[in-house]
Amino acid sequence: MKTVLQNVFSSRTKHLRASEIRDILKITEGRKVISFAGGLPDPHTFPAEDIKQISSEILDKYDYAPLQYTTTAGVTEFRKAIADFSVSRGIRGISYKNVFVSTGSQESIYILGQLLLDPGDILIIEHPTYLAALNSFRLNYPTFIGITLESDGMNMEELEENLKRLYNEGKRVKFLYTIPTAHNPAGVTMSLEKRKHLIELASKYNFLIIEDDAYGHVVFDGEAPPSIKSLDEENRVIYTSTMSKILSPGLRLGWVVADEDIIKEMEMMKQSVDLHSSTFTQYIALEAIKRGVIQKNLPRIRKMYKEKRDLMLDELEKSFPEGCEWSRPVGGMFIFAKVGDKIDTGKLLAESLERGVAYVPGSGFFYDNSGRNTMRLNFSYPTPDEIKEGIRILGDLIKEKS
Amino acid sequence: MKTVLQNVFSSRTKHLRASEIRDILKITEGRKVISFAGGLPDPHTFPAEDIKQISSEILDKYDYAPLQYTTTAGVTEFRKAIADFSVSRGIRGISYKNVFVSTGSQESIYILGQLLLDPGDILIIEHPTYLAALNSFRLNYPTFIGITLESDGMNMEELEENLKRLYNEGKRVKFLYTIPTAHNPAGVTMSLEKRKHLIELASKYNFLIIEDDAYGHVVFDGEAPPSIKSLDEENRVIYTSTMSKILSPGLRLGWVVADEDIIKEMEMMKQSVDLHSSTFTQYIALEAIKRGVIQKNLPRIRKMYKEKRDLMLDELEKSFPEGCEWSRPVGGMFIFAKVGDKIDTGKLLAESLERGVAYVPGSGFFYDNSGRNTMRLNFSYPTPDEIKEGIRILGDLIKEKS
Repeated sequence: MKTVLQNVFSSRTKHLRASEIRDILKITEGRKVISFAGGLPDPHTFPAEDIKQISSEILDKYDYAPLQYTTTAGVTEFRKAIADFSVSRGIRGISYKNVFVSTGSQESIYILGQLLLDPGDILIIEHPTYLAALNSFRLNYPTFIGITLESDGMNMEELEENLKRLYNEGKRVKFLYTIPTAHNPAGVTMSLEKRKHLIELASKYNFLIIEDDAYGHVVFDGEAPPSIKSLDEENRVIYTSTMSKILSPGLRLGWVVADEDIIKEMEMMKQSVDLHSSTFTQYIALEAIKRGVIQKNLPRIRKMYKEKRDLMLDELEKSFPEGCEWSRPVGGMFIFAKVGDKIDTGKLLAESLERGVAYVPGSGFFYDNSGRNTMRLNFSYPTPDEIKEGIRILGDLIKEKS
Repeated sequence: MKTVLQNVFSSRTKHLRASEIRDILKITEGRKVISFAGGLPDPHTFPAEDIKQISSEILDKYDYAPLQYTTTAGVTEFRKAIADFSVSRGIRGISYKNVFVSTGSQESIYILGQLLLDPGDILIIEHPTYLAALNSFRLNYPTFIGITLESDGMNMEELEENLKRLYNEGKRVKFLYTIPTAHNPAGVTMSLEKRKHLIELASKYNFLIIEDDAYGHVVFDGEAPPSIKSLDEENRVIYTSTMSKILSPGLRLGWVVADEDIIKEMEMMKQSVDLHSSTFTQYIALEAIKRGVIQKNLPRIRKMYKEKRDLMLDELEKSFPEGCEWSRPVGGMFIFAKVGDKIDTGKLLAESLERGVAYVPGSGFFYDNSGRNTMRLNFSYPTPDEIKEGIRILGDLIKEKS
């Protein structure tokens, strides 16, 4: 380190970790690698023609407003449109004042961590959970409690035991963070029964729930269960979702639906973080909702991803050796696989990259870095041919090491 | 507060303050008020036709890339364009690896506070300084040292005395934050001599400088002095600027030019904050640079703001009573006025709003809430007629109270 920079960084930078995913993406940059590592949508799902049309029209329709500063919580008309759009996830009876627009849902998750967590505060998460949420919560030095994920969501007995124990110890849970639908990375979906039970427990033990519904609109086997927020009668659920999976990640827009008092605090924090999110892309997304672009596009996305998921499941069946297990997600973008205990997927990655295949080692998704024999496989971005070839290569490698 | 939210917010939320400016903007929403309060560009400066053209073409030119996720530090081509564009502020010999793209320059300032400040760390600022920077630094509980601003920048004797004292006390200054050119709110510009002296002091006393150059391209009396960064031979200067004053704030793009090691740390922090800034608007700004839209537009902006500044200075001369003083900015968007000691501009605001004129009380710009008889007046947004009428109304009110 240069002299100028000696000891200049704050203590919290020691807890910063580069996202393994983004590091892998960097390694593979420019090389011909089949990547199951990212969480990129298939670009063919982007309604590019509609967005082109919209972006050429918004400056006529809204004058200079898309180019000007806007209010911190978002463009009011866009917040109203999001409030209406939320009905598609069963959320009713809210106004734009319950909606907060952020720079991707990542920023909402980050701001919520900053707003709710003091060092040592207890935070319940799924085990595994979304890596970038974990890393952003970590900046507040919380105490994590991880709850095992089953094929229908969290193990509720384990959750309840923990809540009882903490209650008896006089400890409070600040919030529980869950990705109930088409979980990233685990690929599982919480059943309606468990959702109801979770709401009851939140009421009984007085904690908030952050529901990350990034994949709520991207369920392709049957109907998605109603959002937990739609079952919430006590304003305990802070709901977050994103335009990234249903319209375009490049617009960088996510949102929160929550109690107005929470929105106000988020707004104050966001003034310091980035003042507001892009006005221009908020108007694009507003028009995309108004013109029905998203609702029209969803069936296409679901069909495309369903085919890719089916293909990846078939190829896993063909190529992965006995003793391996994997999730069968009803939606989303990821399959989570467990290989034999002898294999450390973190160490295996270098060899896999050499053979031209990238994935994300699963341990980063576990707050305690367990799950060393797991991996996350993205099926939304690679082409069908890449899925076939990549899973075959990966299967061969795992067989060699088993 | 609802039971659900009792004691749920973290201790840092106690240090959150709503920006007075944004609160004033809210009060005036929907009412016919002449506003000198905001920091909005004149929308006539937006090259709307160019942006319309560009946004309808980028999806053809760059395929789906503007709609997809991108790397955290920004679209590489855009970072390269910014590196080239920096030559216009005298900054040479850098590559895209020295450039970090953020959601407005506000996010860069926020991230730098998080990266560099531990509680109690010493931070030197100008007295007054930019309110939103102050509020975002405050979240890290630093110790502020404010240096008096003169018409040619900081009082260097005062700065040097403080540096000596701190050195003798064995205390380190983490960084000095300055807006050297067309200062917000004070309207002053640091002379070249002081810039050189500051660089020397930074080297002698080993501290970093954050140079906020938001208005570096918006100087209309003569040439802007070279940026401090352009004088920096030790990589001590972290330079930040924004598209908000020279292209459009709605694109929400700012950037940093700094040592690569600092960029890397900022990148890691940004992964947790919002993953990356809008890809779509980065491509718009990239094309705006490539096509010369910004350079072509700058003379128009300068001409428009010069006329408005001249008008406001004339009207102040006519309407403000004796004993009042104000800055004569060579650029930027603001005039900073000092009224008689008897007047508290914070208290005066309610009456001013009743008469239909908004401004920002100056005390928010002072870390110690001093400057209670100062006010910031924006001249970029109001129309010429509004400037005439508004300053007359404000002048009458101040006369009554003097």
